[in-house]
Amino acid sequence: MGRIEGTKQLLLISNSTLHGSGYLDHAEKEIRDFVGGRTNALFVSYAVHDRRAYAAKAEERLREMGLSVTSIHDVSNMLRAVGEAEVIFVGGGNTFRLLKGLHDHDLLDPIRQRVAAGVPYIGSSAGSIVACPTLKTTKDMPFVQPPSFEALGLVPFQISPHYLDPDAASTHMGETQEERIMQFLEENETPVVGLREGSSLLVREGAVVLKGPNSARIFRRGENAVEVPSGSNLSPVFDEVVSPIGRVA
Amino acid sequence: MGRIEGTKQLLLISNSTLHGSGYLDHAEKEIRDFVGGRTNALFVSYAVHDRRAYAAKAEERLREMGLSVTSIHDVSNMLRAVGEAEVIFVGGGNTFRLLKGLHDHDLLDPIRQRVAAGVPYIGSSAGSIVACPTLKTTKDMPFVQPPSFEALGLVPFQISPHYLDPDAASTHMGETQEERIMQFLEENETPVVGLREGSSLLVREGAVVLKGPNSARIFRRGENAVEVPSGSNLSPVFDEVVSPIGRVA
Repeated sequence: MGRIEGTKQLLLISNSTLHGSGYLDHAEKEIRDFVGGRTNALFVSYAVHDRRAYAAKAEERLREMGLSVTSIHDVSNMLRAVGEAEVIFVGGGNTFRLLKGLHDHDLLDPIRQRVAAGVPYIGSSAGSIVACPTLKTTKDMPFVQPPSFEALGLVPFQISPHYLDPDAASTHMGETQEERIMQFLEENETPVVGLREGSSLLVREGAVVLKGPNSARIFRRGENAVEVPSGSNLSPVFDEVVSPIGRVA
Repeated sequence: MGRIEGTKQLLLISNSTLHGSGYLDHAEKEIRDFVGGRTNALFVSYAVHDRRAYAAKAEERLREMGLSVTSIHDVSNMLRAVGEAEVIFVGGGNTFRLLKGLHDHDLLDPIRQRVAAGVPYIGSSAGSIVACPTLKTTKDMPFVQPPSFEALGLVPFQISPHYLDPDAASTHMGETQEERIMQFLEENETPVVGLREGSSLLVREGAVVLKGPNSARIFRRGENAVEVPSGSNLSPVFDEVVSPIGRVA
């Protein structure tokens, strides 16, 4: 598990809309603090079918936060748009559709380079998952096939957003989110952060700080899941895993 | 939408275990009727991590129904095992893991050929989805990457098993199963059958009959979803869709 370079700045949000409030309302303060004095953002709209309507909604909302927005599907030169973006905002929707859009337009490496150079990256829901090594922890329906499950790999862990605790009263026999994550760990070594609605992860100066009202649930292969409280720096948890074979005692 | 060849015999079950009863209990009568006097089955165990334990459970349960079971992961010559099977039983679990197993062992064409020749196919949950053209309607976590989403294509529609109606009381902002299916239809033309727990589809002589206590919900692009009662033959519903462009009036 590699440490996260100190230049990287990411705000990874579990969900765009919280029950009872409007689009991005619950995350507004975090977003404002995160972008600081920057005034323009590139919006990546691929996760939703109607990109135009989606971008219009994001543009309106982010304008209220002082950001003028360019949408990736609207520009003639995508590489230049990525290269000039002061902030990259990757919106939620279907993770397979989003990742297919990033692959189809060869955007993964350009975005990685900009984030490595310090450009702030905001992801919400599917936009948070594609910041991880793969899309393998999505709950979305795979109704389009991306050429690969490989994602941006901006952080060395997987996020499972909209994390829902098991409902003991349910009679439905489908797996719970925890059971699915345990199955993920049967096949993969990467740790998973179950990020509840209303939560986000702020990555800055190599730290991964949990924000919002809720704790998060961390899953690692061969370990019991642990709850970490809001305000925690999660990076030491991931640093414990030093290789696919062993752990530091 | 092609008609289903009259030689094909399939029993596609929504779920292996119903709340409050044991493994395959709710489907036992359907399975016994479906296999008739046949006495051996090939069990496809790839959907679950511990194939040996899974096969042992299936073997014990199917033995009570008069079927001796061979597990695909146990045989030295898989092609011969498929070729000799009197019944093919594809168990549930994770659809991505199952489909990866079928692709990795080059089993799709041999199974297609046997089913076209009249060998009864039983699928449960993930085993029902892989009987469809693709895995694109699964709700499973994509924690392994199959080389393709293409599945067996034994029927010309997609199944969405464990179909759950929207919960109006929920405050969780993740999509409902209906919303996911509508997103599938934004990108695909194939009709989708929402198959509730306890339901199954019996394919025989070109008909697709809904079995079990519940109705099913049929989704087609550009149409309102419709409920069809248990006992219905669904094939005329699919036959209405004659091409990706138009419909018979």
